[in-house]
Amino acid sequence: MTRIALVCPGKPILRERADAVLALAEAEFPRAELCFSKQCFEHDGHFAGSDDARLEAFVNAANDAQYDAVWFAMGGYGAARIAADAMARLGDEARDKTYLGYSDAGVLLSALYRDRIGTPVHGPLAGDVRREGGDDAIRRVLRYLSGQETAPEPLDAQPTVAFNLMTLAMLVGTDLMPDLSGHVVMVEEVAEHLYAIDRLFFHVTQHLRGCAGIRLGRITEVPKNDRPFGCDEVAIAQYWCDRSGIPYLGRADIGHDAANRIVPFGVEARASRS
Amino acid sequence: MTRIALVCPGKPILRERADAVLALAEAEFPRAELCFSKQCFEHDGHFAGSDDARLEAFVNAANDAQYDAVWFAMGGYGAARIAADAMARLGDEARDKTYLGYSDAGVLLSALYRDRIGTPVHGPLAGDVRREGGDDAIRRVLRYLSGQETAPEPLDAQPTVAFNLMTLAMLVGTDLMPDLSGHVVMVEEVAEHLYAIDRLFFHVTQHLRGCAGIRLGRITEVPKNDRPFGCDEVAIAQYWCDRSGIPYLGRADIGHDAANRIVPFGVEARASRS
Repeated sequence: MTRIALVCPGKPILRERADAVLALAEAEFPRAELCFSKQCFEHDGHFAGSDDARLEAFVNAANDAQYDAVWFAMGGYGAARIAADAMARLGDEARDKTYLGYSDAGVLLSALYRDRIGTPVHGPLAGDVRREGGDDAIRRVLRYLSGQETAPEPLDAQPTVAFNLMTLAMLVGTDLMPDLSGHVVMVEEVAEHLYAIDRLFFHVTQHLRGCAGIRLGRITEVPKNDRPFGCDEVAIAQYWCDRSGIPYLGRADIGHDAANRIVPFGVEARASRS
Repeated sequence: MTRIALVCPGKPILRERADAVLALAEAEFPRAELCFSKQCFEHDGHFAGSDDARLEAFVNAANDAQYDAVWFAMGGYGAARIAADAMARLGDEARDKTYLGYSDAGVLLSALYRDRIGTPVHGPLAGDVRREGGDDAIRRVLRYLSGQETAPEPLDAQPTVAFNLMTLAMLVGTDLMPDLSGHVVMVEEVAEHLYAIDRLFFHVTQHLRGCAGIRLGRITEVPKNDRPFGCDEVAIAQYWCDRSGIPYLGRADIGHDAANRIVPFGVEARASRS
């Protein structure tokens, strides 16, 4: 049996979406047991409960020996308010676990990776069940967490991490940021103007000098601006990679969508492929 | 005679707004001579001309001995693409000038302050003529640049700088960022959700540890979210200042509005007031 605790470090998940994930797991993954913390359904302004409630829920799940994995049920801003305090409270039981999610939950993946606690993994949130093709995203996670399937072979010979671009931009230079020298960094974004993507690339490429390269995930739901930006996201990524001496390595199969790939942090392609 | 060159490092200014500024200057400031670079009216996708055009216009204005000041006519993202190259090309003539603007133009003020070139000053853009009360913003700048009036007495005994919050967040940790230890840092923002303000404060307070304090300017045009954030911008600023050990010093009279105060970088209150 694989036991999976679900928590919401940012915003809450709708009950009906949690129920859809539970129903799918029950029907198709009899050897996976999912436990949504009641914190996932709390509301406190923007957040799924107060900072204390979100902190306690995450720390309790991470430190509970009965769970094999902590699956972030939703993104939405909020993890930055609890990550530093959480790391200080993680014990030995937290070290054997897998932590899976993306978007704002990348703040916790980043802090865990920095502190070498457990296995941080970029991948779909439980809340992605709402998307077109969302059931497949949920199946992908449950096959991975229950050991039925390994993550797809990494693309590069260097250890890889994956982040939402804005989330990464807010992490660089902070106490929650791991040293990514020698890493391939995948980035994706949703609902940002291309000028904001350009601005974020200026910032993160300055901070990532020394990394092994950047791969560009999907940039989706770009809002319509009063004028076109003038080039696309690939040209933006190439421009700032060139300026900062970071290799641009091409596209990555990640994004705010149901196809979002599973990317375990720090894993590289096997030597035979590199 | 005070000669003022106007350039647009980000987006272009509308001709009618430039004309309104010229008409006001002609009517009320006979001893100020304003020269809009034709680059101000160029269009290249998002920008007021290509990176080269914007770079050349700024460098030529800064290096031209006939001008006493460079006034940024518009903000809008774009200065980050030209600032590093511009600094490398500034000569002795650039050192005696005042550079005035805010918002995205803060990138150039930051780089100038870092390199100790000229006098960077936070203050209204020529394009602010469009705002309610915009004529007074233009008058404030022209009185200041033509020496009719000094900047308002600084609030604090430490040297002060002022930035748009997002602009500052993209500057911290980069080659364009000055050392702000011992400085009071004023920040303002427009058209960002409160959760984004919170996220930006997380980021900048981590980078500004060692500064003398933060003052909060106006946070305006906050978009309506699907749920309230849960606290206001003052509580956000206080929260992150507390967490990072930075003194929260109260409000600042800056913002994306016509009342936006003139703040010369690096100036502190006179000893008699401190």
